[in-house]
Amino acid sequence: MTSRLLAPLFGDPDIDTLFDDRARLQGMLDFEAALARAEARCGVIPDSAVGPIAEACRADDFDLDALGAATALAGNPAIPLVKALTAKVKAHDEDAARWVHWGATSQDVIDTGTVLQLRQALDTLTPKLDRLCAILRTLAQAERDTGLPGRTLLQQAVPVTFGLKAAGWLDALQRAQRRLQALRADALALQFGGAAGTLASLEDRGLEVAEALARELELPLPSLPWHTARDRIVEVGTAFALLAGALGKIATDIVLLMQSEVGEAFEPSGAGKGGSSAMPHKRNPVGCVAAIAAATRVPALVSTLLAAMSQPHERAPGQWHAEWETLPELIRLTAGSLAQMTVVLDGLQLDRARMAAHLDSFGGLLYAEAVSVALAATLGKSAAHALVEAAAKRAVGEQRHLREVLAEDAQVGAVLDAARLDALFAADSWRGMSDTWIDRVIAAD
Amino acid sequence: MTSRLLAPLFGDPDIDTLFDDRARLQGMLDFEAALARAEARCGVIPDSAVGPIAEACRADDFDLDALGAATALAGNPAIPLVKALTAKVKAHDEDAARWVHWGATSQDVIDTGTVLQLRQALDTLTPKLDRLCAILRTLAQAERDTGLPGRTLLQQAVPVTFGLKAAGWLDALQRAQRRLQALRADALALQFGGAAGTLASLEDRGLEVAEALARELELPLPSLPWHTARDRIVEVGTAFALLAGALGKIATDIVLLMQSEVGEAFEPSGAGKGGSSAMPHKRNPVGCVAAIAAATRVPALVSTLLAAMSQPHERAPGQWHAEWETLPELIRLTAGSLAQMTVVLDGLQLDRARMAAHLDSFGGLLYAEAVSVALAATLGKSAAHALVEAAAKRAVGEQRHLREVLAEDAQVGAVLDAARLDALFAADSWRGMSDTWIDRVIAAD
Amino acid sequence: MTSRLLAPLFGDPDIDTLFDDRARLQGMLDFEAALARAEARCGVIPDSAVGPIAEACRADDFDLDALGAATALAGNPAIPLVKALTAKVKAHDEDAARWVHWGATSQDVIDTGTVLQLRQALDTLTPKLDRLCAILRTLAQAERDTGLPGRTLLQQAVPVTFGLKAAGWLDALQRAQRRLQALRADALALQFGGAAGTLASLEDRGLEVAEALARELELPLPSLPWHTARDRIVEVGTAFALLAGALGKIATDIVLLMQSEVGEAFEPSGAGKGGSSAMPHKRNPVGCVAAIAAATRVPALVSTLLAAMSQPHERAPGQWHAEWETLPELIRLTAGSLAQMTVVLDGLQLDRARMAAHLDSFGGLLYAEAVSVALAATLGKSAAHALVEAAAKRAVGEQRHLREVLAEDAQVGAVLDAARLDALFAADSWRGMSDTWIDRVIAAD
Amino acid sequence: MTSRLLAPLFGDPDIDTLFDDRARLQGMLDFEAALARAEARCGVIPDSAVGPIAEACRADDFDLDALGAATALAGNPAIPLVKALTAKVKAHDEDAARWVHWGATSQDVIDTGTVLQLRQALDTLTPKLDRLCAILRTLAQAERDTGLPGRTLLQQAVPVTFGLKAAGWLDALQRAQRRLQALRADALALQFGGAAGTLASLEDRGLEVAEALARELELPLPSLPWHTARDRIVEVGTAFALLAGALGKIATDIVLLMQSEVGEAFEPSGAGKGGSSAMPHKRNPVGCVAAIAAATRVPALVSTLLAAMSQPHERAPGQWHAEWETLPELIRLTAGSLAQMTVVLDGLQLDRARMAAHLDSFGGLLYAEAVSVALAATLGKSAAHALVEAAAKRAVGEQRHLREVLAEDAQVGAVLDAARLDALFAADSWRGMSDTWIDRVIAAD
Repeated sequence: MTSRLLAPLFGDPDIDTLFDDRARLQGMLDFEAALARAEARCGVIPDSAVGPIAEACRADDFDLDALGAATALAGNPAIPLVKALTAKVKAHDEDAARWVHWGATSQDVIDTGTVLQLRQALDTLTPKLDRLCAILRTLAQAERDTGLPGRTLLQQAVPVTFGLKAAGWLDALQRAQRRLQALRADALALQFGGAAGTLASLEDRGLEVAEALARELELPLPSLPWHTARDRIVEVGTAFALLAGALGKIATDIVLLMQSEVGEAFEPSGAGKGGSSAMPHKRNPVGCVAAIAAATRVPALVSTLLAAMSQPHERAPGQWHAEWETLPELIRLTAGSLAQMTVVLDGLQLDRARMAAHLDSFGGLLYAEAVSVALAATLGKSAAHALVEAAAKRAVGEQRHLREVLAEDAQVGAVLDAARLDALFAADSWRGMSDTWIDRVIAAD
Repeated sequence: MTSRLLAPLFGDPDIDTLFDDRARLQGMLDFEAALARAEARCGVIPDSAVGPIAEACRADDFDLDALGAATALAGNPAIPLVKALTAKVKAHDEDAARWVHWGATSQDVIDTGTVLQLRQALDTLTPKLDRLCAILRTLAQAERDTGLPGRTLLQQAVPVTFGLKAAGWLDALQRAQRRLQALRADALALQFGGAAGTLASLEDRGLEVAEALARELELPLPSLPWHTARDRIVEVGTAFALLAGALGKIATDIVLLMQSEVGEAFEPSGAGKGGSSAMPHKRNPVGCVAAIAAATRVPALVSTLLAAMSQPHERAPGQWHAEWETLPELIRLTAGSLAQMTVVLDGLQLDRARMAAHLDSFGGLLYAEAVSVALAATLGKSAAHALVEAAAKRAVGEQRHLREVLAEDAQVGAVLDAARLDALFAADSWRGMSDTWIDRVIAAD
Repeated sequence: MTSRLLAPLFGDPDIDTLFDDRARLQGMLDFEAALARAEARCGVIPDSAVGPIAEACRADDFDLDALGAATALAGNPAIPLVKALTAKVKAHDEDAARWVHWGATSQDVIDTGTVLQLRQALDTLTPKLDRLCAILRTLAQAERDTGLPGRTLLQQAVPVTFGLKAAGWLDALQRAQRRLQALRADALALQFGGAAGTLASLEDRGLEVAEALARELELPLPSLPWHTARDRIVEVGTAFALLAGALGKIATDIVLLMQSEVGEAFEPSGAGKGGSSAMPHKRNPVGCVAAIAAATRVPALVSTLLAAMSQPHERAPGQWHAEWETLPELIRLTAGSLAQMTVVLDGLQLDRARMAAHLDSFGGLLYAEAVSVALAATLGKSAAHALVEAAAKRAVGEQRHLREVLAEDAQVGAVLDAARLDALFAADSWRGMSDTWIDRVIAAD
Repeated sequence: MTSRLLAPLFGDPDIDTLFDDRARLQGMLDFEAALARAEARCGVIPDSAVGPIAEACRADDFDLDALGAATALAGNPAIPLVKALTAKVKAHDEDAARWVHWGATSQDVIDTGTVLQLRQALDTLTPKLDRLCAILRTLAQAERDTGLPGRTLLQQAVPVTFGLKAAGWLDALQRAQRRLQALRADALALQFGGAAGTLASLEDRGLEVAEALARELELPLPSLPWHTARDRIVEVGTAFALLAGALGKIATDIVLLMQSEVGEAFEPSGAGKGGSSAMPHKRNPVGCVAAIAAATRVPALVSTLLAAMSQPHERAPGQWHAEWETLPELIRLTAGSLAQMTVVLDGLQLDRARMAAHLDSFGGLLYAEAVSVALAATLGKSAAHALVEAAAKRAVGEQRHLREVLAEDAQVGAVLDAARLDALFAADSWRGMSDTWIDRVIAAD
């Protein structure tokens, strides 16, 4: 699916393997085997055909390059695969060979095969995402007292806690997990409609076979075949893309925290990790880089899936084909991002002293809002705001601490005594609902 | 939001009006009024402040151009709006003016204002989509016996019914409706976090006020503020985009059916509708054209929303701002597509005779699969396929009807008598599960 | 780079091979060898180092999987490659090993390696595109007298010639070729700047070495290194994307012409080509399908490249990495589309009789504009238009030929005698500038 | 075109006005007037028709809302506009009214009208971009001795100069300017083909009229009409998008330099500019925010234009219409970004002392490469790298300056005396080709 050189950086081998050529073939062959079983159960094909067909449905037994060459002529891989499968079955059992692919069309095979691959990807990814959520839950709990500057538009604004940042990351990932699990109910549905969706070649047995096949594959049976109604496929893509986006946000935060001038958090280090070929002293982010690359690429892949929805009539001349590599690529990049960010967050190194120092580095300006609010109840918001703004300007101009400047102000003194003023400039004076939010996020799981 | 020249073609005035400047201001002002009420209820601000604030929250009273000019300096419209609102309140009640926007930040105002606009858009769109679904339900029922060629890769394949086509369209729209309604549970959530998400300026009353505000606005209260966790916004965008995509597929089908050479279905005609400036005899599709334009534009807007998810720290320097016009545009185009396709489908003209004629136009080749299946049970699939393929070739070569050619074949005669052969070539011989699918789709609502 | 199953359908092996792992390594190694030669020529490194370094620069000698694993740690493939290359050189010549990669940074290696791959891709694609242009030139010439309905909004409008259609396709491809060739002047430029673009580690010899290296690789030397100014890369992407788009338009036209109900042009047929697994009589488009899939996927890849332009400071944490697989994929899809459409157009089968029949199929309505114009000079445009429109309506209503209806009209008779009227309804009465346009397009090459 | 609230932030009024409804109408009317003049010159219509037609071609005289309503029925604005124009002319001169729009089709009017608007936008933007280039040229010259840390992957790497950064920005903008000017040669071409591209309604005068019309409008005459060959339109879009991308990169650099912890450069301040509603001490970026928003939105709009290239046959049912709002929006956002970044860069405030301090803030680690290179000539690259790396580690561990640690090293002492070592740690010791690159960029203009 991708290069051996770059796959370890951008992908996750556990997921990559679910979308390689072998897996693609096996997905289609699993459909064919299940179809034979379902049709035998319904009495549409003889029981005796099931064994020979099912036994032939092993991807490793097929010649990939021959199938590839035939795909270029046939326009899709199902046609040559069914031909090759029929030949294989025929070699052992001429009668069974008659019943291969009975009543199905290429798109049934390819779409359901894809759905089976997608379900495996979901099964594989679910515990991985759970694991990252668990790491973040621990981080949110552990760092609830770790103050650092909240930053808006990349400027220090007011204090927050690192626990709160982690809870925000976690909250988005928990929503991503819920969206992914919701795909199982309907989006990952059986495709089975025959040549144009009517299952006419099964005469009056279409629904019965479809139900049996859905049971066989443990897939939901849709109201009707969805050959050219592709919203389910796009929904799968968007659910993964929202995960990639949430991971990209975390990675963005961390590369910013890792900046030389900020230095509050770091990817874990290790041999050969993040070095520079030209500069002996540097340690580069690596996992975040992969996650940012994924978050840069995935949005466009979703737009491809959406653009491919205009599939005419009963089967599309190209738009369907545009999905075949796009959706796996989207999932591969998301899974790679998840894998990298799990390493990053599992070993995240915090410089809590630096965070604390930053809270105070601008002469107490970060607590300006705290003072402003404390004064506002008495002075009114505008007057308080104006007073603090003037004091802040003086503090900056005279390079003094804001608390000092405020302490000299008679208006301030009338409202806040020295102890109250000191308390307003303490690291945890200004946490507000941080702990409550953390608790709510953890409880929301 | 868009041009007066093109809005009637691409938009829906009922929705456009929900996203114009006035509506944008009103959304923000509704937040400010509700905030005052909620804070008074919690005892955070005096009851006496509520009236003066709430009364000043009328969008029409504000100077749009002055606000626009100030927005260019401030970087967002909430800052000048709050300033102007405070001034307005102050003119009547100096004390109340102190409490305007108490504890909130610009992004709280803008995001919640947007959520209120989005909810209105959803409320407005819901019955419109219901109406289109009802039209399609009627169409699916009424046309269940109307046969026409199913077309795969734009080639006639096997028979389907027009009712089945309509049911397929309906099924996708019903799913789109479910996705849209699901947004109400969490995606359309209150935004309220103050400067960096902690609500610290409300000291220990943050959650209480947030709960009261959520009740006031009848919005779900999220686990924590989501200033830079934008998946909810993207989820809203994708839900609408999936609707636009489903409508684009219908429009694609209809422009193809309207082709001069196909002529099976037509947009309703009317004075001034779809004429050509150069060709007196032409009748162009118009509604479908708007829907296809929307389906061409919306996917990219989703990718913008996804790309904008990498919002650093506690507020983003640009990515958030990229959403402000993108999401309304996406919804506007979707609503316009829905409006146009409702007109198209409500007045859709069918040429059932032409459909029937097409079923037979290629010398019965569309029934080839039916015959092939009827023969396969006895001859085996491959042999049956080969036999029918050879007969089809002869029929084409000799310009005769396939039934005629098959009737001469001894092997065929041995399996199918003349009556059975005739029945196989009848218009409704090959409907399979069409009616069942239609019933299932209608029941799934 | 892609699956063995799908590559033959979507790609072109001649291009795929230029972007596989081996080619990627070789591109980087070619940079390293040329750098050694250039630096020796400038006296920056000893002449004796060149041989050992250059000899070690063979991609096949490196362990791809080991490099891949190290890439996941290092964050880019150049770091482990340089390490492995140094080790290889050292094994033969310890002193030469000192001078490997002298003064360069990872991004110099990767970007210039990519540029070398891109130039090869351009060299390989150029004659292929020339060949398709030649095919279209022949087609445009040969079919200049083949009339068929021009179709606007998918409805028959007025007559055109197939030669004109081919000339339109050709014109766009010729522009695409010019854009591609223009990339050689500046877009495919040397990247060489060292750690942060200053080449400081070469002290005062930076420019001299850069010039020598540019000569060595026969690449243009840019004004300054472009590590985070990525417009050249995007420009390459857009030039290929415009080719993919032009090919997608041709494919769209052809699948529409291939429709059962139109049947005016067909992809060449062949064994195993375009058959259906369920329907024995069908012949599906295949090459056009691949081209439409490419045209559906490529636009989003361009948006990824554009979105990745915001690369901070002197090297980007992720946006650069987002290009690595995206640009090759874009080119691969474009090349595959070109290969497929060359087969399609080289063997394109026309049904000229069907085209001619279609010109007359709607009772002469396609000539309505011709008559309208002929009358307008005398009657005025509006009156002529109204007269012809009324006649067209009568013709349709009475199922008669438009010429017949017009012949009965006194007003028409006063302006046009029978011979002139007949001439207006002749197949080539309405070719206008078709031949002139064809000649101009061919001359524009 | 956009909201009055947000336009001042995201747009440029000089450009917005070129794409509003009035301008859109005037573009179309300019086509109609020029067509009349050209046709009269060729003797195709009477000279007497020109005056009445040309005089009626004033956008302000038309009823926008009536045209909008009719557009929704007709499917494009040209049809009702031509009708209204004809009526206006007829009111004064019945004979002249016959000759309105003679031989043209809707798409000729709309496309050429758009091309005229695009050319005006280009004319308007060109000096604006020149002005920004001039600002950057001055900045590059003025700051060639201002050292600051070069940053790769957001980490301090080696020294660069601010002049070099500005030269890099300038270089990309100069290329953007060249690409924009190149559009005039062919991309901004006349559209004139009549109903299906043949100009048949002008009989044998098509080319002559087209040539005269091209001269009249001072537009290049294409080889043939390009109704469904849209690469020119996309090329215009990509040229602007590359400018938006280059501006987005500059804005990204500046918001990063403005970070509280970096503080090396700042947007100009001013009354009401960049304040925060919650935090009295903050100064937010505003211009960069608009530029980043534009760079986030524009890529997707290009993908829409590319996706819309698959326009079937002689006129498209929707894809063409997808361009109408997309291309203006793309240009509007680019122009707004240019306007904002011009303000930002014109008043950019540098903290040179902070830059200098950062160069030394990590105990001289930024000069590690300089020392490493100075040693490598004698010790070999690997040994030098290893020696410096070890020294760097010791310096970090012992919190000492790297120069101090190196001065104690005997191996170092043998190669570099104290004066040479000191020189290596001086702010401008490590500028390499910075000045040369600046000179080359300025000369490249």
